[in-house]
Amino acid sequence: MLLPAAARRSPTKISPSNVSKSNRQLRLQSRPQGLLAPGDLQLAESPVPELKDGQALAWVKLLSIDPTMRVWMVADTYLPAVAIGEVMRALGFAEIIESRHPDYKKGDRVTGLTGLQDYVIIDESTKRSFQKVPKIPFVSDTVFLGVLGINGLTAFFGMEIAAPKKGETLVVSAAAGATGSIVGQIAKIHGCRVVGIAGSDDKCAWITKDLGFDAAINYKHPDWKEKLAAATPAGIDIDFENVGGEIMQEVFNRMNLHGRVVVCGLISGYTKHDPGLASLGTILVKRLRVQGFIIMDYASRFMEAATQLGKWKMFGKLKDRETIVEGLEKAPDAINMLFTGGNTGKLIVKV
Amino acid sequence: MLLPAAARRSPTKISPSNVSKSNRQLRLQSRPQGLLAPGDLQLAESPVPELKDGQALAWVKLLSIDPTMRVWMVADTYLPAVAIGEVMRALGFAEIIESRHPDYKKGDRVTGLTGLQDYVIIDESTKRSFQKVPKIPFVSDTVFLGVLGINGLTAFFGMEIAAPKKGETLVVSAAAGATGSIVGQIAKIHGCRVVGIAGSDDKCAWITKDLGFDAAINYKHPDWKEKLAAATPAGIDIDFENVGGEIMQEVFNRMNLHGRVVVCGLISGYTKHDPGLASLGTILVKRLRVQGFIIMDYASRFMEAATQLGKWKMFGKLKDRETIVEGLEKAPDAINMLFTGGNTGKLIVKV
Repeated sequence: MLLPAAARRSPTKISPSNVSKSNRQLRLQSRPQGLLAPGDLQLAESPVPELKDGQALAWVKLLSIDPTMRVWMVADTYLPAVAIGEVMRALGFAEIIESRHPDYKKGDRVTGLTGLQDYVIIDESTKRSFQKVPKIPFVSDTVFLGVLGINGLTAFFGMEIAAPKKGETLVVSAAAGATGSIVGQIAKIHGCRVVGIAGSDDKCAWITKDLGFDAAINYKHPDWKEKLAAATPAGIDIDFENVGGEIMQEVFNRMNLHGRVVVCGLISGYTKHDPGLASLGTILVKRLRVQGFIIMDYASRFMEAATQLGKWKMFGKLKDRETIVEGLEKAPDAINMLFTGGNTGKLIVKV
Repeated sequence: MLLPAAARRSPTKISPSNVSKSNRQLRLQSRPQGLLAPGDLQLAESPVPELKDGQALAWVKLLSIDPTMRVWMVADTYLPAVAIGEVMRALGFAEIIESRHPDYKKGDRVTGLTGLQDYVIIDESTKRSFQKVPKIPFVSDTVFLGVLGINGLTAFFGMEIAAPKKGETLVVSAAAGATGSIVGQIAKIHGCRVVGIAGSDDKCAWITKDLGFDAAINYKHPDWKEKLAAATPAGIDIDFENVGGEIMQEVFNRMNLHGRVVVCGLISGYTKHDPGLASLGTILVKRLRVQGFIIMDYASRFMEAATQLGKWKMFGKLKDRETIVEGLEKAPDAINMLFTGGNTGKLIVKV
């Protein structure tokens, strides 16, 4: 089921003969409580629709598995909840295999809200959810979902909100995740002391040895709070918060005056009831700035950010790792992995 | 005990004959729980100290009664708690009556941390807690503790953090208080729709009729939440938070996307245990910015702010009201008034 990134096969060649006429889809059948249960997402098959004028047909090759999908399954938030019976919303990477839309031609590559399915129709009403991506030699397609995709962009704009200064201490939770791992590396570029919090010794070793974090805390060790204190002797200036809950409270307690808390995600709360609360008394006394953000608000600046991220990546300043799950039907298990700590780096389903 | 501002007498003339040789002081005897109990501040008398070289003696005429004093009585926060037995910390307005310090001469007027007492010695070690204020014709001395003092400055820099845009809706709690009443008027200058929350119909009438707030909500009416909703039909863009607790939660629920919560004070919590919590989930989904601030961080810009506040006041854009309590010995009762809703506008003890 899981292959290390290095073991991935080269992308399957597309030819008319291996394009199925059947579209497998994972549809939301029931709203999960806690982790996804079997049947919350139900596999269905329907014929690939015939193209009309103004439509393009894209073959979905890779799916980005993100914590926010769990939110989309249950609640109206920054996007409406996915309706029962609807194809589950997801970001993906796809290739145009047939087009009757003037903006798309066969072979074009796009990322966008493909949904958990084999094929997606792009038309005038949905095309703003997609953007074309270039073919770059020696660069894996997966990068457009990770470092140059949602996670890289999220880390980039989140760090803009954090306004790091050289020498400040940044703590990032879910530090070995797709976003957290990039956040820490951007903070290093800015000259911060970077401490990551993650859920296994392997993850901690990766972010310190390969990514250059100054320290890593495995929150599953009983003495993690003491270790966090030892790793942040000058307190914490920036909390890049991906998790919420108890981890966030402990980081909050160590915040310095004029600290910044960037609320990027609250994954500890997505499968429970309450993603956490921030003490207004602490915010007041420590003059904290606590700011939430959602990456799609920055859509008009994606190109600017991707250009910078691409440069950093090219110069070896942003390293990444991927966890690849094979098969559309494994997507529900993959979503649960996010909440049980199963992935390191970017989690992708190869359709 | 209470005199409306208009009934105040002109300042007592200072002459050697009416300068007492005894210094009355209110010293912290015990840390209050809830409201101040009799004896938490104890009146003591000691001789006015003989001046040494490098000292100036100031006669304290007016004392600023502020919610933060209740915090100073119990906890180390942005300043250390007042020690048991120490003169209670307070801002005041004083006049130099004798000086052996090169920076001060008899007749100079200062505001600063005088403490709750008749006389204060200013020397090299304490002078940075004081600043000289000019004598302005037809302007009451009290203005240097209110509109041009701590409250005006707090409102000014808090509104800078709020970054108001024309047409946005601002809600301010403790709206008839010394700071809240100025906040609302500055927001009107910026073109906001301004809704104040206060604890009596009289206060509500003052802020709407005299100060020009668009609406006022008396939170003691049982249907105040419905009235708040009706007064903010387009939601709330800025919460200027002085109170915390249930009022804050209700305002929080009505915040718009990209709203700003300026955490200036949490008076509802100062006499109880918990000044309130902010939902991180709401901060994330609504992309809120929640920022705490303490006015003394802006000390280097006080002159700039006071100049602007003075202009606004001169042009009639900032109106104020004062609640004057006569007698140093009444200061403990005055502090409690802040938490029981007894004052409108600036609360001052005339020593």
